[in-house]
Amino acid sequence: MNEFDFVSFLQKQFPFPLGVGIGDDCSVVKQGQSYQLITKDILVEDVHFCLDYFSAAELAVKAVAVNVSDIVAMGGKPCYFYLGLGAPSYFMEHSLLDFFQGISNACQDWRLFLAGGDLSKSDKLFISITMIGETDRPVYRNNAKCGDLIAISGNPGESALALKLLQLDKSTISFSQKHKKLNLDIEKSNLIARYANAMIDVSDGLLIDLKRILDPSSKGAAIYYEKIPKTKEFVDICCQFQFNEQDLVLSGGEDYILLFTISAEHESKLRLLNVEFHIIGSINDHAGQLSVYNFQQQIQPTNLGFDHFLVNS
Amino acid sequence: MNEFDFVSFLQKQFPFPLGVGIGDDCSVVKQGQSYQLITKDILVEDVHFCLDYFSAAELAVKAVAVNVSDIVAMGGKPCYFYLGLGAPSYFMEHSLLDFFQGISNACQDWRLFLAGGDLSKSDKLFISITMIGETDRPVYRNNAKCGDLIAISGNPGESALALKLLQLDKSTISFSQKHKKLNLDIEKSNLIARYANAMIDVSDGLLIDLKRILDPSSKGAAIYYEKIPKTKEFVDICCQFQFNEQDLVLSGGEDYILLFTISAEHESKLRLLNVEFHIIGSINDHAGQLSVYNFQQQIQPTNLGFDHFLVNS
Repeated sequence: MNEFDFVSFLQKQFPFPLGVGIGDDCSVVKQGQSYQLITKDILVEDVHFCLDYFSAAELAVKAVAVNVSDIVAMGGKPCYFYLGLGAPSYFMEHSLLDFFQGISNACQDWRLFLAGGDLSKSDKLFISITMIGETDRPVYRNNAKCGDLIAISGNPGESALALKLLQLDKSTISFSQKHKKLNLDIEKSNLIARYANAMIDVSDGLLIDLKRILDPSSKGAAIYYEKIPKTKEFVDICCQFQFNEQDLVLSGGEDYILLFTISAEHESKLRLLNVEFHIIGSINDHAGQLSVYNFQQQIQPTNLGFDHFLVNS
Repeated sequence: MNEFDFVSFLQKQFPFPLGVGIGDDCSVVKQGQSYQLITKDILVEDVHFCLDYFSAAELAVKAVAVNVSDIVAMGGKPCYFYLGLGAPSYFMEHSLLDFFQGISNACQDWRLFLAGGDLSKSDKLFISITMIGETDRPVYRNNAKCGDLIAISGNPGESALALKLLQLDKSTISFSQKHKKLNLDIEKSNLIARYANAMIDVSDGLLIDLKRILDPSSKGAAIYYEKIPKTKEFVDICCQFQFNEQDLVLSGGEDYILLFTISAEHESKLRLLNVEFHIIGSINDHAGQLSVYNFQQQIQPTNLGFDHFLVNS
């Protein structure tokens, strides 16, 4: 069983009659005139991060940010959150104030409030945040339309490349931020959400996250690799260290850029608002088919991206 | 710094202008005519439980139950929840379906819905649940009144005793349930909530949890040990294994019974509803003072209860 089968099993086992439950970035429950969005993301030491290259404060900011990313990926504004923290004794003694300074900075940056939580000892550090947001118009994953353009709001692969350099201790401080710090722009994301048909944030890799739009929408897609934006610096570093650029771009995780589908008409309207985004493909009716081309040559990606459920991934 | 100082630091650092935030069983945010309650409780392997004596399904039920307990301790009805699960490979491969069967059973028992979550690999198992509930009248910890009676809804110490027996491999299956299974009665709890002034669920020990009512209420209390209910079985087992009965009753954790303060007038009204509870003391104006008597002799408890923040606790 992989993550897709598992989510499908959970959706059958746990229907949610009060709104939209398992299977999107957030759950959605109508409240008065608007919708409450709730998301939960966990970060685990040595799975999602390593304390060798993350300070406690940087980690706190990232843990909040990945949840903000889920809220904006549904077209919402994040409001407040709950923090579950499991921490070893040395972290409790030496890093807790630094950690909460990071939480405090994140609250200021994104106008959020910490509303509660729970703290426990734990052999390894883990951070479990539940965030509450709201929106007038939730953007779901399952609403991609045939003929929609596929767009991204930034450059995929950069976070995964920065991580590789951090692990080799070869990163510059400035490039390492591409892994450590999320480049979130709530206003820009909310503008995109007004026009997008389906949307997700790229957390586990461009292709696996695109599949999370295609499958519930019962659609297929064609992606044009040459249209995916890459900086010269990115291409040069891949070349210098002989990293597989294509793998990083298509399957590298943790970019937290927005991946969305949009009609041609809405694309023009969004362009007029000076929002930067890149068209990288299109949605078609071949449900389950995801084809990737590079200058009209079809290419076969070696893997889709990170699957938490596969024991060996 | 202990847990009390830490919570006080967090309350100053993280004010919550949208309602009641850090420092009670749940956060409280007004929504239309009622209040939304949100709580987050985490359970960590080898801190809160041990897989030697918990099946995956039992653990799932308990993880849901401790959050239900927080909601009812504020006078609420639990509605739905989010599950963060960190699990080792062997658990993913062999115990995940059993675990979700437990989640499913808990949903049926308490009419709850699982609305979302996140899953990750982790060296040790941890479960982080965030639960959403609602109430028309939240009952806070900080509202104990001078002259209030102090009451409990069950027998404290039994869970801690059952845990000791489990750890020695001396428990009967039936007695082990006192640790493994919470005896939750949402209807009874909601009746109590109608009349209580202040309330908490006993999770870390009777005295430490009473202190969590006294400190924010700026009150003191006198507790009469002889009035605390204990079964003959409980007393006999303590005697047989030479366990310190008083420590278990006053400081044993995880009973998840309700500890509340109530006016004499409301106590009579609650009695008329055939709700079983026990008066064990009274609230006074000596802020910060918690005195415990046994047949008029003052006794000095050796410790208050479990403090997650004390590194050596």
